[in-house]
Amino acid sequence: MKAIDTKKLTQLLTEFIKISFQKEKYSDALIAVSGGVDSAVSLTLTARALGPTHVHTVLLPYGLLNDQGTKDAKSFIESLHIPQNNIHLVDIQPMVDTVLAYDKTMDEGRKGNVMARMRMVVLFDFSKKLHALVVGTENKTEHLLGYYTRFGDEASDVEPIRDFYKFQVFDLARSLGVPAYILDKAPSAGLWLGQTDEGEFGFSYKEADEVLFLQTEKKYSRQQLLNKGYSEKFLDRLLWWIDKGAFKARLPKVIAKD
Amino acid sequence: MKAIDTKKLTQLLTEFIKISFQKEKYSDALIAVSGGVDSAVSLTLTARALGPTHVHTVLLPYGLLNDQGTKDAKSFIESLHIPQNNIHLVDIQPMVDTVLAYDKTMDEGRKGNVMARMRMVVLFDFSKKLHALVVGTENKTEHLLGYYTRFGDEASDVEPIRDFYKFQVFDLARSLGVPAYILDKAPSAGLWLGQTDEGEFGFSYKEADEVLFLQTEKKYSRQQLLNKGYSEKFLDRLLWWIDKGAFKARLPKVIAKD
Repeated sequence: MKAIDTKKLTQLLTEFIKISFQKEKYSDALIAVSGGVDSAVSLTLTARALGPTHVHTVLLPYGLLNDQGTKDAKSFIESLHIPQNNIHLVDIQPMVDTVLAYDKTMDEGRKGNVMARMRMVVLFDFSKKLHALVVGTENKTEHLLGYYTRFGDEASDVEPIRDFYKFQVFDLARSLGVPAYILDKAPSAGLWLGQTDEGEFGFSYKEADEVLFLQTEKKYSRQQLLNKGYSEKFLDRLLWWIDKGAFKARLPKVIAKD
Repeated sequence: MKAIDTKKLTQLLTEFIKISFQKEKYSDALIAVSGGVDSAVSLTLTARALGPTHVHTVLLPYGLLNDQGTKDAKSFIESLHIPQNNIHLVDIQPMVDTVLAYDKTMDEGRKGNVMARMRMVVLFDFSKKLHALVVGTENKTEHLLGYYTRFGDEASDVEPIRDFYKFQVFDLARSLGVPAYILDKAPSAGLWLGQTDEGEFGFSYKEADEVLFLQTEKKYSRQQLLNKGYSEKFLDRLLWWIDKGAFKARLPKVIAKD
């Protein structure tokens, strides 16, 4: 897979953020920080683009479900010299639980969507209150696999890393000096205890990125991928996720009268 | 303004809905019905396209805030022979109030956004539960004026009327037999007591549609509109809303590396 020129990319992305904010006449950004690598990278780039005093952060834990993530997020935000007044914390548990109460039959998937969307509700309310644009944290791997909740974690105003694969986000993170306590944990959407992205996928980010890169950027056929030694079973599983991603990206369908 | 051929349009729109569902391999639709004209039209078209037994509806009142709307919605749904089992009602008040509790300083605008987004949370949870696609109810006038909450009432899977102005939606409603108890009330987002769309705009839908139509479809300049007798003050106010709509439609900004 193509290694990225992280220095050049950092310059490109901070410029993109700066110009996006200038165009919309906003000086301040708001980011939901989870303690994971994606939000750490988006946050660092935004702080460099706008200056740390123009960056607001919000931590949105569900009770103590991911307390280590919250602590890591807080430490990392502080390390970027973002003022204490710009660090907000809202426990979404009471809000989420009130929704869960309307239907006792909800499975983990539906609960996860409610949590992701409730985070959006609070995040966008803050953005209105603070007159700030929301910087998103989605990467290309998640996007292609549909590993996000529509109108939930995908909701944002500016998306600096959506066109970059997870391995590129990690490369970028290392070059930006994101610390080991964020880099070395298993990526997780934090929607339930013990959840990991890779556990849900049934394959690793490394495998997914390799094949997504070959398929999307190099236009490899299924046969070419089989020839390279990837198994039928893995490719089928990956395809199931890719279809999910494509379905989400196709919506909504809007009629145009012309 | 151009009158529409409502018979032809009805055929076009039901066909659009039918094909959209076939393409995505979904047989059932879900619609949030408010008692207003937009959802009445979307609902009628969807029931004609898929058959009433394949249409699920959900009423999402905030307590008794708009009780007449809820009653009207229920009567109208029943008049389309949608089965009782397909009519759901969830009071969003407890959910919304739990969010409002986190910040006592919220103004009406922010509260309205929380309400619109909470409706989305419940609506999309139902759609997952029922394996149904969400049919939206947005029209072109609202869309151009940005009179919607992003990730709230704009969230949907299929949008049959988004390319039609409010006056065209009314034309369509009359031709579809939507009753007077829905047609004759002042359009309202139902976000607080006594709210009306036109009260918020500061102008009528008729005025807005006339100018939006001339600007968007006929490419009239500001000077041409002034020559037609529209006042500076009205055009400025309308422009303020149009800018809001354009802002919302421009987001999110995503960088593409190529």
